[in-house]
Amino acid sequence: METRVGFIGLGIMGKPMARNLLKAGYPLSVYSRRRESVEALLKDGATGAASPQEIAETAEVVISIVTDTPDVRQVILGPDGVLAGLRPGTVVIDMSTISPTATREIAQAVEAKGGDLLDAPVSGGEGGAIAGTLSIMVGGKQEVFTRCLPLFEAMGANITHMGPSGTGQLTKLCNQIAVAVTNLAMGEALVFGAKAGLNLEKMQQAISGGAAGSWQLSNLAPRVLERDFAPGFMVRLQQKDLRLVLQEAEHLHLALPATSLVHTLFHALETLGAGDEGTQALVKVLERLAGVEVRG
Amino acid sequence: METRVGFIGLGIMGKPMARNLLKAGYPLSVYSRRRESVEALLKDGATGAASPQEIAETAEVVISIVTDTPDVRQVILGPDGVLAGLRPGTVVIDMSTISPTATREIAQAVEAKGGDLLDAPVSGGEGGAIAGTLSIMVGGKQEVFTRCLPLFEAMGANITHMGPSGTGQLTKLCNQIAVAVTNLAMGEALVFGAKAGLNLEKMQQAISGGAAGSWQLSNLAPRVLERDFAPGFMVRLQQKDLRLVLQEAEHLHLALPATSLVHTLFHALETLGAGDEGTQALVKVLERLAGVEVRG
Repeated sequence: METRVGFIGLGIMGKPMARNLLKAGYPLSVYSRRRESVEALLKDGATGAASPQEIAETAEVVISIVTDTPDVRQVILGPDGVLAGLRPGTVVIDMSTISPTATREIAQAVEAKGGDLLDAPVSGGEGGAIAGTLSIMVGGKQEVFTRCLPLFEAMGANITHMGPSGTGQLTKLCNQIAVAVTNLAMGEALVFGAKAGLNLEKMQQAISGGAAGSWQLSNLAPRVLERDFAPGFMVRLQQKDLRLVLQEAEHLHLALPATSLVHTLFHALETLGAGDEGTQALVKVLERLAGVEVRG
Repeated sequence: METRVGFIGLGIMGKPMARNLLKAGYPLSVYSRRRESVEALLKDGATGAASPQEIAETAEVVISIVTDTPDVRQVILGPDGVLAGLRPGTVVIDMSTISPTATREIAQAVEAKGGDLLDAPVSGGEGGAIAGTLSIMVGGKQEVFTRCLPLFEAMGANITHMGPSGTGQLTKLCNQIAVAVTNLAMGEALVFGAKAGLNLEKMQQAISGGAAGSWQLSNLAPRVLERDFAPGFMVRLQQKDLRLVLQEAEHLHLALPATSLVHTLFHALETLGAGDEGTQALVKVLERLAGVEVRG
């Protein structure tokens, strides 16, 4: 437990993940643009740092979890970034969801300075981050993964080494494809049921246990029926991830008709001003098309 | 257990369902166009009948499970049909998946002769039919449903009275929307992963436990990875159900963009000659678009 860990990014996901590392006994230095989050972590026993560079100057493992590809580039490659302070042998674990192509580029830059990068995006939302039950999909060298496994185990439950650099990100994108399209499956079943005049609570219960069943239907449909659109996962972050999926699909010359459709429908939802709502708000677009409200 | 039951339709679903009624001790008379199926049931203790009319002349409850709306019309309303032999007080339970509108018409015809009709389509496939764990979604009078509950319990596990006549069928259509679009969610995740060069078994395991999880992903993706396209549920029957969904959506003036998309992609799959394969073969269409094969 003597590994000194630096942690960059204390957002909805990062804060509870950093807390779980502290609880597991790791000495932790933290950096975030959010002053309140840093202060909360200092109370929990972390030490503060003035920049990602300062984090890297003392840590053996640097973890980052920020929003998007440009944020990771800035935090790792930018002025006062991790690379500026990186010492040979340091492992950088990027747990953000970003472009797999950019990930491989950043990994090369880290390796050029004698370090190693793992891409290790997560799934499971704020709830999973707090409970320490995140799914973690890891790309990078097997040996480095094995060395870092105890850290992952402090934050997650379902931890998979997927292969070389970038494969963690690619797996996360598969995850987001399935999440987004299954959400649409739920939405269409709900508006059909609403328009047909069904008791939607009974309908949801009748179909959830069988071949129609999904995490989305079991967990998000009840929220829709209560008109609860608070974010478990925000529409605008889902859109960022779908943008990554479709960019990668374009590189691969790959047709993803349903994923493209969901992305487009989420655009319409953002136009309705629902970008900060939870992804279950997708049903609102279908409601507009149907002239009906889905309600329990 | 003295209720005399007549059973019409001994296909993939009907045969094991009829067997479960026999096992539960119900005296059973059976009718099917499939001679072999009838003979198998006779060995199990059922009695045979020459027509649906003859079934109705002796049974207190008549169960039908045939393929499509015209089949139900013929079996119930046609010459030598159930209605020709129906005695007042008889309950007809149609467990086929058919048009909700036609269901309400047939219910009226049955009521005009002093009987009652329940629409009670099922979900759970051949496996659920054999195990007696089907989901059964029932429309019709509450009192009639309650009277027939022991029969349903002999065939299924998750039994829901949804409301008046037709609501069982409408709920089944919600089920088929979710099934079909979630299947496409799985397919797009798989072709993306394949095209990106991921280890697809690891990918499926890494994402199945979280927000991307679904019955389809857990049960059908492993079959795809083994290139096993044997039918749990046949493409052409899924297409029949999606046709019912989209006809009903047209009546309701309801846009179902993803369901329409899946229906179209299944058309392409039928063109490839895969109509008798299982629904997991949907991935083959995506493979054609991607120029890649999904394999474990």
